[in-house]
Amino acid sequence: MTRTKSLSRRADRVADRVHDEATEGGAVWRVSALKEVSYDVMVQPRLLDPANPALARAVTSGAAPVRRLIVIDATVASLYGEQLTAYLTGHDVEFRLCVIDAHESVKVMATVFEVVDAMDAFGVPRRHAPVVAMGGGVLTDIVGLAASLYRRATPYIRIPTTLIGMIDAGIGSKTGVNFREHKNRLGAYHPSSLTLIDPGFLSTLDSRHLRNGLAEILKIALIKDAELFDLLATYGAGLVEQRMQPGEDAVGGAALTVLRRAVQGMLEELQPNLWEDHLQRLVDFGHSFSPTIEMTALPELLHGEAVCVDMALSSVLAHHRGLLSTAELDRVLDVMRVLHLPVLHPVCTPELLRGALADTVKHRDGRQHLPLPQGIGDAVFVDDVTQHEVEAALFALGERERAMRQPKVRGPVDMGV
Amino acid sequence: MTRTKSLSRRADRVADRVHDEATEGGAVWRVSALKEVSYDVMVQPRLLDPANPALARAVTSGAAPVRRLIVIDATVASLYGEQLTAYLTGHDVEFRLCVIDAHESVKVMATVFEVVDAMDAFGVPRRHAPVVAMGGGVLTDIVGLAASLYRRATPYIRIPTTLIGMIDAGIGSKTGVNFREHKNRLGAYHPSSLTLIDPGFLSTLDSRHLRNGLAEILKIALIKDAELFDLLATYGAGLVEQRMQPGEDAVGGAALTVLRRAVQGMLEELQPNLWEDHLQRLVDFGHSFSPTIEMTALPELLHGEAVCVDMALSSVLAHHRGLLSTAELDRVLDVMRVLHLPVLHPVCTPELLRGALADTVKHRDGRQHLPLPQGIGDAVFVDDVTQHEVEAALFALGERERAMRQPKVRGPVDMGV
Repeated sequence: MTRTKSLSRRADRVADRVHDEATEGGAVWRVSALKEVSYDVMVQPRLLDPANPALARAVTSGAAPVRRLIVIDATVASLYGEQLTAYLTGHDVEFRLCVIDAHESVKVMATVFEVVDAMDAFGVPRRHAPVVAMGGGVLTDIVGLAASLYRRATPYIRIPTTLIGMIDAGIGSKTGVNFREHKNRLGAYHPSSLTLIDPGFLSTLDSRHLRNGLAEILKIALIKDAELFDLLATYGAGLVEQRMQPGEDAVGGAALTVLRRAVQGMLEELQPNLWEDHLQRLVDFGHSFSPTIEMTALPELLHGEAVCVDMALSSVLAHHRGLLSTAELDRVLDVMRVLHLPVLHPVCTPELLRGALADTVKHRDGRQHLPLPQGIGDAVFVDDVTQHEVEAALFALGERERAMRQPKVRGPVDMGV
Repeated sequence: MTRTKSLSRRADRVADRVHDEATEGGAVWRVSALKEVSYDVMVQPRLLDPANPALARAVTSGAAPVRRLIVIDATVASLYGEQLTAYLTGHDVEFRLCVIDAHESVKVMATVFEVVDAMDAFGVPRRHAPVVAMGGGVLTDIVGLAASLYRRATPYIRIPTTLIGMIDAGIGSKTGVNFREHKNRLGAYHPSSLTLIDPGFLSTLDSRHLRNGLAEILKIALIKDAELFDLLATYGAGLVEQRMQPGEDAVGGAALTVLRRAVQGMLEELQPNLWEDHLQRLVDFGHSFSPTIEMTALPELLHGEAVCVDMALSSVLAHHRGLLSTAELDRVLDVMRVLHLPVLHPVCTPELLRGALADTVKHRDGRQHLPLPQGIGDAVFVDDVTQHEVEAALFALGERERAMRQPKVRGPVDMGV
């Protein structure tokens, strides 16, 4: 939800227009206003349990009966559609499902228009009936952009069902779609009023998508949370195996801690910079080369996998600069290996990486602002990485990978699937 | 330009996450941030005069040489392209023109994508190289939306070349395009950092487009500025004839006063409600029935013409409610006639108006919030207009029109072109 502050004092500025002496007949007005944006992120286990009122409360804002449009991923609909229908019907919510088969290749404006058409057909009013987006990060990014564009901003609620949605895509303010060959080239800052996180959805997530989310958690760990890194190093394999489900054992205990620390760390980084006024962003670690890597390898690499390749490359680069010791680099790459995340991909040629960094420099307004880990759990920004350094890192990473695979005689890349 | 306030105090809120007692394992974070938006609107005569540094200063932010992308309307390019090229070349600005033949029928996302492609091809960086939009309200709305979407917000500068652009479309925060049959269904709040208004461009504007702008000025006059109304009543015909050019005579003197009062009145209304958090907007006068009228009649009616039809209908409605006296209603309709603006159009059937109001009610979140003039220069909001009242107003307006045309024996509508 957004609201404006009372601006009576500022409104005077408009009345007191400044006369510009420079040119006869000139006049200048300055328009200034403050916008307050506020949104909630909640962990809410057993969201679809009829006895849990949280979802009903969120969807109805307390006042039932209501009508709501629910945009839901096709896989999620097949897994949870019945439960959801029973829950909403039981709570007196009239609803329509708009089912989208969401994946990176359809993260484009045409899919945003599908959602807009559904909003028009349903007759979504402007303010009081948030659209519900239920699915992974691709789905919530698409619905978020549709909601942002529809009547210049319509509220929505996110229910991320993938790990990457719960700790990254579904809790920030960014929405967006790919355009031509460019990752997230079009978008808006438009957070949902509420994100409801139910780790229970992860019980049906395939291991590859779970690892995809763990890659973004590893990012948070590397740049700011050594304790989170230790948890991943210790329990990584178990977290994948037990699908991040909370429980009495050590892995089950770690699951909820990892999830909470990841959300906490992410929100700490996002809140002071919600509109990216500062282009030095720690959370851009792993996101300097990866947009181009991901779009070029599409649909081979999931987002988190492309991010992991970038993190591996950047970590070797940091090592070459003396920011990471050999032991630390080994630990970083070991965790990636434990999580079966790729650290290289055949599209990563020197030329591709050169273009990738050049585009990122445009995105960071002419500077590299490249976050590099400094030890584990801390990071610095550098602006002077050379193509030579990038190539040296790429070569070193390739050598490491070849050495790892010595006896196996396999292709150069293990996708970890 | 936008920037965030220092949010260190607020950032603590994220750290102090609230534990939700309702459910075991629950956790809640609230993310809050303030965004300050500030932009300038300047009247700058002789903008393309090589001796006037205003445009160069605006485009280069003081630092030349620079590269800028300029999106320009085809008609404006044919009229002013040479002068603009000479000006920019003389001021050491490297630029590329992206020419768009802008009119209401191409105010759609496909045209936004054309602009995005031009931005990509030019390599617009994220923050320091505002795209320049030069043309009418349709063009600046399209470029504004492209800039808003591009990398989730890129700065731009507006140089409106039509009257409606100078006093309405080009000075607010709204951008947008039509979608399917819906007027401005998709858009964003993204004001340009600067709008440069040069009344000189009006000297080449055809009289129909000039009247189109005067309709929106009449709107401001009716809802809040009786003095502005008097100026239109007295000098309306002359302002059209002399193309709103400032000069020594009475009409020339009125031209600049009318322009300034219109901008002033509009900004006073917009600034306290820049994101339309309040849906009772005086500036929505003339914009309750007109979106549907305009889209249905497309391309017959210009925006201001459709607005004028709505204002005429709403004024009769206000008269029937005792808010406007017969004499006042006569004065309102007389000014419309003096400005050769239409007060009716054949698409205005009872059924169309019913649907138009129903869609507007959705846009105003379930309420009519219909601004009606109360005398001249003041207005009230009503929420209880019945279909019967709308039809009575439509009928009465038709009767008046027929009576006006008695001896002429012409079709039912004079488009005033």
